[in-house]
This record gives sequence, structure tokens and C-alpha cells, in this order.
Amino acid sequence: MPDTSLLEVFENPAKGRDYVIEHVSSEFTSVCPMTGHPDFAEVVLRYVADEVCVELKALKLYYQSFRNEGIFYEAVTNLIADDLVGVLKPRWLVVETRWKGRGGISSTIRASYGEGAC
Amino acid sequence: MPDTSLLEVFENPAKGRDYVIEHVSSEFTSVCPMTGHPDFAEVVLRYVADEVCVELKALKLYYQSFRNEGIFYEAVTNLIADDLVGVLKPRWLVVETRWKGRGGISSTIRASYGEGAC
Amino acid sequence: MPDTSLLEVFENPAKGRDYVIEHVSSEFTSVCPMTGHPDFAEVVLRYVADEVCVELKALKLYYQSFRNEGIFYEAVTNLIADDLVGVLKPRWLVVETRWKGRGGISSTIRASYGEGAC
Amino acid sequence: MPDTSLLEVFENPAKGRDYVIEHVSSEFTSVCPMTGHPDFAEVVLRYVADEVCVELKALKLYYQSFRNEGIFYEAVTNLIADDLVGVLKPRWLVVETRWKGRGGISSTIRASYGEGAC
Amino acid sequence: MPDTSLLEVFENPAKGRDYVIEHVSSEFTSVCPMTGHPDFAEVVLRYVADEVCVELKALKLYYQSFRNEGIFYEAVTNLIADDLVGVLKPRWLVVETRWKGRGGISSTIRASYGEGAC
Amino acid sequence: MPDTSLLEVFENPAKGRDYVIEHVSSEFTSVCPMTGHPDFAEVVLRYVADEVCVELKALKLYYQSFRNEGIFYEAVTNLIADDLVGVLKPRWLVVETRWKGRGGISSTIRASYGEGAC
Amino acid sequence: MPDTSLLEVFENPAKGRDYVIEHVSSEFTSVCPMTGHPDFAEVVLRYVADEVCVELKALKLYYQSFRNEGIFYEAVTNLIADDLVGVLKPRWLVVETRWKGRGGISSTIRASYGEGAC
Amino acid sequence: MPDTSLLEVFENPAKGRDYVIEHVSSEFTSVCPMTGHPDFAEVVLRYVADEVCVELKALKLYYQSFRNEGIFYEAVTNLIADDLVGVLKPRWLVVETRWKGRGGISSTIRASYGEGAC
Amino acid sequence: MPDTSLLEVFENPAKGRDYVIEHVSSEFTSVCPMTGHPDFAEVVLRYVADEVCVELKALKLYYQSFRNEGIFYEAVTNLIADDLVGVLKPRWLVVETRWKGRGGISSTIRASYGEGAC
Amino acid sequence: MPDTSLLEVFENPAKGRDYVIEHVSSEFTSVCPMTGHPDFAEVVLRYVADEVCVELKALKLYYQSFRNEGIFYEAVTNLIADDLVGVLKPRWLVVETRWKGRGGISSTIRASYGEGAC
Repeated sequence: MPDTSLLEVFENPAKGRDYVIEHVSSEFTSVCPMTGHPDFAEVVLRYVADEVCVELKALKLYYQSFRNEGIFYEAVTNLIADDLVGVLKPRWLVVETRWKGRGGISSTIRASYGEGAC
Repeated sequence: MPDTSLLEVFENPAKGRDYVIEHVSSEFTSVCPMTGHPDFAEVVLRYVADEVCVELKALKLYYQSFRNEGIFYEAVTNLIADDLVGVLKPRWLVVETRWKGRGGISSTIRASYGEGAC
Repeated sequence: MPDTSLLEVFENPAKGRDYVIEHVSSEFTSVCPMTGHPDFAEVVLRYVADEVCVELKALKLYYQSFRNEGIFYEAVTNLIADDLVGVLKPRWLVVETRWKGRGGISSTIRASYGEGAC
Repeated sequence: MPDTSLLEVFENPAKGRDYVIEHVSSEFTSVCPMTGHPDFAEVVLRYVADEVCVELKALKLYYQSFRNEGIFYEAVTNLIADDLVGVLKPRWLVVETRWKGRGGISSTIRASYGEGAC
Repeated sequence: MPDTSLLEVFENPAKGRDYVIEHVSSEFTSVCPMTGHPDFAEVVLRYVADEVCVELKALKLYYQSFRNEGIFYEAVTNLIADDLVGVLKPRWLVVETRWKGRGGISSTIRASYGEGAC
Repeated sequence: MPDTSLLEVFENPAKGRDYVIEHVSSEFTSVCPMTGHPDFAEVVLRYVADEVCVELKALKLYYQSFRNEGIFYEAVTNLIADDLVGVLKPRWLVVETRWKGRGGISSTIRASYGEGAC
Repeated sequence: MPDTSLLEVFENPAKGRDYVIEHVSSEFTSVCPMTGHPDFAEVVLRYVADEVCVELKALKLYYQSFRNEGIFYEAVTNLIADDLVGVLKPRWLVVETRWKGRGGISSTIRASYGEGAC
Repeated sequence: MPDTSLLEVFENPAKGRDYVIEHVSSEFTSVCPMTGHPDFAEVVLRYVADEVCVELKALKLYYQSFRNEGIFYEAVTNLIADDLVGVLKPRWLVVETRWKGRGGISSTIRASYGEGAC
Repeated sequence: MPDTSLLEVFENPAKGRDYVIEHVSSEFTSVCPMTGHPDFAEVVLRYVADEVCVELKALKLYYQSFRNEGIFYEAVTNLIADDLVGVLKPRWLVVETRWKGRGGISSTIRASYGEGAC
Repeated sequence: MPDTSLLEVFENPAKGRDYVIEHVSSEFTSVCPMTGHPDFAEVVLRYVADEVCVELKALKLYYQSFRNEGIFYEAVTNLIADDLVGVLKPRWLVVETRWKGRGGISSTIRASYGEGAC
């Protein structure tokens, strides 16, 4: 079950600079709520930190907590964005999920938060 | 025969956010109305949902309904865009068809709807 | 419906030489006999001609005759190989079909005829 | 000899929409007017139609009419753009020619017409 | 839990020919028995059928049954090979698993059965 | 018109060694004898010289002499091989032509001469 | 230990022009301060010089001085940017570090200085 | 020795249009003034002509005149830009040099002239 | 300092089968004994186990023990092969190191042990 | 002028093993003896050492000594092979030169020495 308590942070080492952090996870998997079949995605997180940065191993465990969750592409993308915005309170943040094909169709969902997100 | 009744929708799970949904189908085929030979394309749909999102399996079946339809590149692209705008009433929407070569020429047609489409 | 009468040949212009002819069609489509969904494949034909060579446009039309045929991967590959062996009577021949993914699995089937096929 | 009479058009099936049409020909060849050696290029045509669209087979034949013409890269690119603007009267149009290397130098020439061309 | 009862077969449509069948699944996942972290692999199955062929959807479900199983790379590869040999009794068979990197090391394990496997 | 008198040679600088020479021309074009449309190919020549090697500029001019010749794929490949064997008298020689697609089918023809050709 | 005294400069040979200099090092390595395991990155430096340019061999030695330093991705990126800004006093400068994956997650950190950095 | 007298021009065949010309040379080499070792680069020239265009063979010979010249990356890029601006008097012009790696660092230098250069 | 005591093994789970195990580490680094500069390589280990397999995390730590070792390409490759043969006593084993370029030259060293290594 | 005195060797650190050494230089240049234009190649050296190995920096300097030498592709390949066989007295050796295109033709020459060369 998605679990935000897994998300740990550390203090931003360069608070005075508007720099961009990007983490690309190529091993995300959840389950289709309609068919029960597994879905596989690459998840991109890109943000400008304010006070804190997300700890990398914690991020991995948070993503793993979706492994057996039945959830739609559009919902999981917005949920991850909401969870991370809640914990990081970033200047801006983007979450992009890139899903492997189903029935010959591959999908990308991209949710952003804040001014200047790119 | 292209059949918009196949297009099913579900409620947008994040109505308060301006996020982008993209579905890329690599298995589109229709028929050239002049020669009767099959045409093959990749179809990209990209949109920002308002109230509803398109259901993925329904989208696949809708695309399959073009299989034996004789129709020009330019017409099919605009028809798909019109059909999807009618059903989804999105904030904006783009349909791009990328056709395999005929006589050494490959083609891409790109129709958009709404402000900010990209 | 697959139709071997579409297969036309012309006289081998170099009967005295053991040379290899390969035709790769990237636009083969048939239908899954279980689900009714379309399947898409690349079809490779490789052979050494004896008396005759297959005419290229005729080969295309023969492949197109599978468009609405419900048939399994393994069966269609062997059927194409049998049809072509019957018409061409080649020294050797290979037919390889490379199918786009279904449920995350892509498949390749490879049937050959005669000594020395590679 | 380049022959604009080969260029046939058909009525734009979506006159009310500002959509983009792109045709990429990978088989263009002309002749260097200085050395007599053949030149090979990929030719990209991208435009927004107004009243008419260019017919694809006619475009191919028009390109083929350059086959034995001695003409410089810069001149052929502008000539194609002028010919197509004359026949199509598009909202905007871009012609880009991408030439294979000569003496270790490959070249791209890009001519455009109209506001908003991209 | 890995479950061979999921493996369904159908009768080989070309028993008289020594042809090769290959299925590549890009969505295999199991769990590391030491750390509990998920592992991700591409699984290649290649075989020459004797009496029966494996049904594709059944193969997918069989692979999915490893999803929450704690098992080493070397063990899972040999287990899949043994299970498939038991059910298919093929002339020869190869199973190759290609694992995404752990600590900067990516791994491939390849088990085969029978004479002539390649 | 194909013209073998264009083929010039120079003395093999290493007659005592069995070394391999390969020239890949990416700019071959001839004409389809049935439709009159141009065909485009990459031509690979690979050989072990005996007394003489083919001069590179001469080879280019020989290939250019096919520019407006109507000739089938199979015939042109064997003709080039025969012409070069006649002039070079090599230990072995391979000519491979790789043709751009026609009607979604791309072709490769490969003719060889002599023992050990590869 | 990171050592800015290694950074040597030379006079900008084109002070009157706003030109861009980019150096991409594919061989950066430091150590994770939490696990002690090595991290590997590609480091991109892009800047517009004012009075001086960084000498290439000196830059390499400066990067090598991080080899056994325990430091986080975010911190090392900002430290390199600060060090180089201090020594070069450029019009603008960007440092981007692209880290190989850890636990299936690869990361990119991008810090910039000055107006117009891109 | 770099020699601008090698640079020949011809009259711009489309003076009334703002079109872009790009020449990419993949075979540039000069010498490092510090070590004497050869440097290798790809040189991109992109410009909008005013009255004249640069002749392609002349450009190649001009580039070759750097072959045994000892000169830094930054200096050679600006020198080429200055020489070409002097001879072509273009509306705008960009010279970009992309150098193969030295000590694991590859470099790109990009100098431009005029408004709107891109 | 290279340390074979780091190499841990586990019992081969399929002793009765001649299957191939391959581990590719993309993060190997050692030091040039002549210049003191770091070297970077990809290390491929491929073997058929007899009684035991190498444990993956232990292999990573063993490779890390070369980090500050001054050693030539040829020596390190043979040393790794010898160490692993000593610990694994495999049926056969191959070690291949692929080094990033130095002075424009990249190198690959490949040492094998036992009959049938490939 | 090609200068074999530049070729330095060091003692083979693993004389008792039949292992393969490969060095790929991507920065070879010489001059065409007919036109005076520079030629550019990638040079692959692959060998099994007997008593000695070639030192890498020395190999680079030896290759650089061809920089202003007018010499044909076939001759330079055999000359390098002969020079290296003379100095290394290897069990077997292969030299392969891969030349950038001239007039649309790129070439590869491959000379070998000794039994088992591959």
C-alpha cells in the first residue's frame, strides 16, 4: 500500500540556489485495478528544493510500496505528485510516469506543481 | 467503420490539476482510398482532461474500427481529433499520426484543439 | 483469405549461382483467432532460388491477403513457408515472423526448408 | 527537368483547423552542376494548408523530375519552396534538404515561407 | 508462488518441421531472497516444439506467478527451464534471463535443454 | 548504361597475404524496369584480391553508370558481381545490395564467387 | 580531497564575444557518505568566459581530487559550481552531474549561476 | 597554416529569403599547442547568407589548412568564425566545434555572430 | 588492494546443468601505474559453475578493492581471472575488461579458462 | 613518416595464457597519395601476445607518425600489420582499418597474421 511515511528528507545543502534535481526510476510496478495484471513504468521526479531534499533510498522504498496496489495510470501519477509535494514543499515539482505498452498503446502521464515547473 | 460509440470515458481523478496525458498507439492501420492498399501509422494522442479521461481499452477498439476504412492521412487525423474532442471535451488536445513510407515518402499529420496545446 | 494464386514468379536471372535473396516486409497484419484483435508482424523471407524468383508486388499482395484472417503465430509462419516452397521450389528457404508484443511478450517464429538454410 | 505541372492537389479536408502536414522523402537525387556527380538528399516538406493539400504520389513524381538536373544545394531548396508555395498557397511552408556528405561535409538547407513557420 | 498449472499448451500446427519459437517477456519481476528488494528481468524462451506449443497468455500468467517470490537469479532461470521442459517436452529449449543492474552489475543467466539448442 | 570499361585497377600491395577489402557505397540508384520509378540501394563489395585491387574512384563511376538503367534487383546484383570478378579475378568476392523499401518491403540480394567467401 | 588550487586558467582568446564553452567529463567518481560505496557520474560544465577560461588538464585533475571524497549528489554539484565560479568569474555557468543508477534510480543535478545560463 | 584566401564564394541564389545553410564537417584536425598531439573535431557552420554563399570545396580546403596548426579549442573556434564573417558578411552565423575526448573530457565550443543566430 | 577474501560463494542450485552465468559491472576503476591517472572499465564475467556460484554483492566489493590500485590493463584482467578461477573452480570462465579511451585509444582485454569458454 | 622505432613493448604479464588484447584507435589520419586530401580511419589492433605486449602511448605515437604520409588504404593496413608483427612476434594478430567515406563509399581493410586469428 502506498506509504508516505517511507519518505525521508535531508536538509538542502544549497538553499540559496535555484538548482534542479531529477531522479529517474526505471523499476516502478503497480497493478491494473480492472484486470489485475501488473503494469510497469519509468517514473521521473524533477524538482527545485526549498528547505529539504528527498533521500534516495527512501524514495525507492516509497515507490516499492505501490508494487501490489491496484491503481490507474492517471491516479498514481497525481498521487505521487501530491505525496511528494506534501513532504518536500518544493519550489516546483514534476512527476512523469512512462508506462510500457498495453494492447499496443504506451502511455505517459505528467503532473506538475508550482510556477516555472519544466 | 470508425465508431465513436466505442469511446468510453472515466472520471478524471485529479480535476484540480492541469496535467498531461499521452497515449501512443503503434498499431494503427487503415486503407488508402485510391489504391486500396493498407496504410500503417503510429497515432499519438496528447491532452489535458477536464471532466473525463478516455479509457485505454476503448481507445484501442476505436482505433481498430478504422482497420478496413478507406481514408486519406489528412482526413483520418482530423476525424480522430474531432471524435475525441467531442467525447472528452478536453482543455486541449493534440492528435499526431506518423505514417510509414509510401514510395519513399513518410508523412506526419498533426491536428490540435484548444489554447496551449503542445 | 490467404491466397497463393497471388504469388507470381519470374525467371531466375542467374541460375548458375547460389545467391541469397531476402525480402523484409514491415507491414504484415492478421487477426488473433482467440480474441479477434489484430496482430502485427515483420515478415522476413530469405531463400536461394532455383528456376524462379518471387515477384515483389505479388508477394506484397499475398501478404495482404492475411489481413483479416484469424490465425496463430505458429500456423501463419508455417503456412507462408509452405505456400512459398510450393510456388518457388527453392534450393532452401527461411520464413521468420517477428510479432509486436502482446501482454508484454513479443514473439519470433522461424521456419526453414532445405539443406543449408540460414 | 523540374516540372511543376506534376504537382497535383486535393481539397483540404479540414479547412477550419490550423494543422500541420509533413512529408519526408528519403530518396531525392540531383546532380552537382560543377562535377556532374550525383547528389543525394532527404527532403522534408512541412506546411499548413489553406484551400488545398499536395497529393503524395504527385509530390514523388515532382521530386523525381530533379533526377538528372544539375543544380546547387541552395538553389534546389529555394526552387522547391517557390514551386510548392505557388501551387499550394499555404498559410506557411518549410522545405529542408539534408544532403549526404561530400568530402567529409554534409549539408542542410532550410527555406521557409509565411508567418509562424517552424 | 510459481505455479506450473498455469501453463497451457496447444497442439503443434507443424509437427513435421523443425522450426524455432521465441517469446521475449520484458516484464518479469521477482524478489531478492536476501534483501527483499524487487528484481526486474527480461525473460527469453526459445524452443523447438515436439507435440505441443505453449499458449502465450498462459505463459504470461505463469511468469506473473513469480511476482512476490523470493528467489535467486540462477535458481529462477533453472526453475523456469525445468517447468517448461516438463510441460512442453520440446526437442530443445533455452531460457535466458537478463536482469537489470544491482550495485552497478547487470546479469544474464542462460539455461538450455536438449541437443542443438542455440 | 553499366560500363565495365570504367573499372580501373592497381597492383595489390600485399600479394602474399590473404586480407579482406570491403567498400560500402551508400549512394547507388537504378530504375525499376517495370514502373520506371527509381530504386535506391547500399552496395557492399567484399573481396580478397589476387593480383589487382579495384581503384575507388573508378568503382564509384562504374556504380554511377547504372543511374538510369532499368534493371531488377536480382539481375543488377549478379551483373555487378560478374563484372567485378571479370576485372579483378579475386580469390573470392561478395556483392550485397540492400534496397530501400517498396510497398513496405525492403530487400537484400547477396551473390558470392569463390571458396571461402564470407 | 576536493582541491581548487588545482584549477588553472588561461586568458580568454576572444573577450569581445559571448561564446559558449562546454566540457563533458565522463569519468567522475566520488564516494557515498552513507554507504561508502563509489558513485559514478558524467559531469557537464558549460559557461561563457569573461576574462579567463579553465585549462582542460587542470579541470581533469580538480575532478580527480573528488575520487575518495564522501559527498552527496546535491552537495558535490553545488560545490563544483561554487569553486568554478570563484576561479573563473564567468558571465554565466552551469554544472550538471548525471549519476549512474543506484537501486534502479539514476539522478541528474543541475546548478547554474548568472543571467542567461542555459 | 590557416588560409582565408582559400575561401571562395558564389552569389546567393535566393537573396530575397531568410533561409538557413548548415555545413557539418566531420573531419577537422589541428594540433594541441601544448603537447603537440593531434586534436580531432566535428565543425558545424550555420548561417543566413546576405550577398554570397561559401563554396563547399573551398570550405573543405580552408578547414584542411588547420591540419598542422598548433591552436587551442577556444581560439580556433573564434578564428574560424571571424574568418567566415569577414568573407561572407552574413546576416548571422554560428560556428560550433565538437572535440573528441582528451583525458576523458570532450568539449564543445560555440561562437556566434549577429542578431537571431541559433 | 585487491582482496580475494571478499569473494563469497553459494552452492550452485542446478549442478546437473551446463548453464551460463554472466555478470557485467559498468563501474570498475583502477589507477594507471605509470601516470597515476584513474582508468575506467566495464568488466564482464561469464562462466559455467561447477559446485559454487559467486555471490553478487561480494563480487562488487571485490571489484571495488581495485579502486586505488596501480595496475596495467593486461595484468588486472588476468589477475581477476586467476582469482575467480581459484575461488569458483568453474567448468570454464571468461573475464573481459573494456577500458574507456586514453589518447583516443580504447582497449578490450579478454582472458579465458577451461575448454569451451566463449 | 611511419616510424617503427616508436613502438615500445613491455613484458607479457600472463605468458601462460592465450588471452586476447584489442586496442581501437578512433583518431587515425593519413593522406591520399593521389589527391593529397586527408583520409580518416578507425584502426583496430587485436592480437594474442607471446613474450611482449605493445605499450599504449607508444602505439599512439606510432599511429601519429602516419599523419602526413601519402599512402593507400590497402598499403597502410598491411604496413601496420607487418610493423607490429615484426615488433611483437605475436601468436596471431589482426589489423583492421575502417575509413570514412570518400565519394559516398566507406571502406574497411582487414589483414591478419597467424593461425586462429579472429
